[in-house]
Amino acid sequence: MAYTIRDVAKKANVSTATVSRILNDLGGYSDKTKMKVLDVIQELEYFPSGIARGLTNNRTHTIGVLVPNLTSSLIAEFLTGIESVAHKVGSSVIVCHTESQGIKTMKYLQLLHEKRIDGLIIASTVLKEEYYDYIVKMNVPLVLLSAYSEFPVPYVIANDHQAAYSATKHLIQNGHSKLGMISGNKEEWIAGNTIPRVEGFKRALSDFNIPIDDRCIEYGRFSIEDGVKSLRKLLNRNPDLTAIFAENDEIGIGVLSAAFELGISVPKDISVIGMDDINLCKFMNPPLSSISLSHNEMAEEAAGMIFKMIESGSKVENSILGHQLVERQSVRSH
Amino acid sequence: MAYTIRDVAKKANVSTATVSRILNDLGGYSDKTKMKVLDVIQELEYFPSGIARGLTNNRTHTIGVLVPNLTSSLIAEFLTGIESVAHKVGSSVIVCHTESQGIKTMKYLQLLHEKRIDGLIIASTVLKEEYYDYIVKMNVPLVLLSAYSEFPVPYVIANDHQAAYSATKHLIQNGHSKLGMISGNKEEWIAGNTIPRVEGFKRALSDFNIPIDDRCIEYGRFSIEDGVKSLRKLLNRNPDLTAIFAENDEIGIGVLSAAFELGISVPKDISVIGMDDINLCKFMNPPLSSISLSHNEMAEEAAGMIFKMIESGSKVENSILGHQLVERQSVRSH
Repeated sequence: MAYTIRDVAKKANVSTATVSRILNDLGGYSDKTKMKVLDVIQELEYFPSGIARGLTNNRTHTIGVLVPNLTSSLIAEFLTGIESVAHKVGSSVIVCHTESQGIKTMKYLQLLHEKRIDGLIIASTVLKEEYYDYIVKMNVPLVLLSAYSEFPVPYVIANDHQAAYSATKHLIQNGHSKLGMISGNKEEWIAGNTIPRVEGFKRALSDFNIPIDDRCIEYGRFSIEDGVKSLRKLLNRNPDLTAIFAENDEIGIGVLSAAFELGISVPKDISVIGMDDINLCKFMNPPLSSISLSHNEMAEEAAGMIFKMIESGSKVENSILGHQLVERQSVRSH
Repeated sequence: MAYTIRDVAKKANVSTATVSRILNDLGGYSDKTKMKVLDVIQELEYFPSGIARGLTNNRTHTIGVLVPNLTSSLIAEFLTGIESVAHKVGSSVIVCHTESQGIKTMKYLQLLHEKRIDGLIIASTVLKEEYYDYIVKMNVPLVLLSAYSEFPVPYVIANDHQAAYSATKHLIQNGHSKLGMISGNKEEWIAGNTIPRVEGFKRALSDFNIPIDDRCIEYGRFSIEDGVKSLRKLLNRNPDLTAIFAENDEIGIGVLSAAFELGISVPKDISVIGMDDINLCKFMNPPLSSISLSHNEMAEEAAGMIFKMIESGSKVENSILGHQLVERQSVRSH
């Protein structure tokens, strides 16, 4: 790091302003000049570091995204949406996979701090105090995606309560009165989606005068495997159920799979509706009805908010996006 | 950046060695000391940058991974495997989503260069000359995962030819002689998997004295949607097929979905085998037989190779991993 931008300019026979323009990707130079300067930079081992650039224009054009997993379709859809907005405004995205672990999350926050990101999106993760305190110290804009928080942080969510109500109502309006719900673990609920979804389920039952029986709700976790296990447990306890509301589509896909194994026909013997409307739903046998939560829009909204905060330094409003019933072939009239 | 490590040490009333140990996460100090030092760093706006740390110990403990998409299960499994090895050796992973686009790929390579990664893994991507040249300039170790290359770069692959041969042989040994294959686009083949897979299919037919008819191979792309479309086209041309080899499981899931729509029963009317053995296979109706290519092992192997190269600076050998038939319920005797 002994060489300076002046050394680079001198050796490449251009002005320091040109070197700076090249480093900051501002245009106004030929490809040939650019290649020459980059060659000199390489030769001198002068490092046009993100940090140095950050000091010049106060921006590294990089945002960080923390996600709890990489194998859920939902997270993949979030990342794709965020990435597409970031790409449009010329920013890159660093994806950090926390596995919902506190230690990994803190480690990634440190990494993002070191890499001097312009802003941070945390998706489907409970914002712990420890994270929040560190991010306040990092002094970068933060948006929560599909997560609530007790801290003053803007968020983008769906109306989970209302969406769950719609799913349940759809089953009831198809003549079902023996309904079960398969939900995520209420102790480890992801960022607060589970509780409003369970409440939405219960409120719909109550509004349609169907007695609420807590044994008809199975709490598991959120993967396809969990859906398989949960259906078996739920049906063991309640063999007369005719319809299942799965809190997310992965659980719903697990329910379809377990039903196949058990020789139960969907929707002939049992109706199933999921939530999230991930891409896979339409390819299931039978195609899985679901509630679309507009994840792509949610992700784009969160990305839009973060870039607005980065640009203007101003606060942004929370955003609650709509949902929509997507009828396929996994629910039938009873 | 006016303050130095000495200023931090002085103000926190510790030695510079302690500050350095804290910055490099080496232990040997109390949590209280650590918090105090971090507070001073925050207060002075002294930046313990990745680059500065890199200069000290020549490492940023960060590797980059370039992936062509984020929605395929295969990529998610690769990332999970890489991440788990990196985490064990104390490194973080920056995931960059290139969408197989040259411009985005170059932009991410620049970003990774600026962020001073220790090493780079490129997954399921054709290594273009432009990328290769830039990476040579970056002077970081590179490993290709599930991709071949004409350049002298170590890679981890499966034996695609042999795996496709095994899949086809399984169908033939179940009595099928009217076989179709649905493959990715031969012009845009991803990193060279398609051609050996088609060749493996043809060689199996040939070894079992089944005539090869090129109309029985449909070239589409690699998603579930593509599998749906391709089955329709393939059956239009060849209505008498009794078994389908899908080049990857996503195509295979699309085949199951299209068969359901068309009222064709799997495996009663048509047998289907996929390849990759992604997690979803076992949850399909019917569960999809496949060839396991040990993606987790491949990813861990690639990560192991990159860290070995980073540690020792030495070359590593290419790695070709095995495969295994996973029989489920989508193939039956004819």
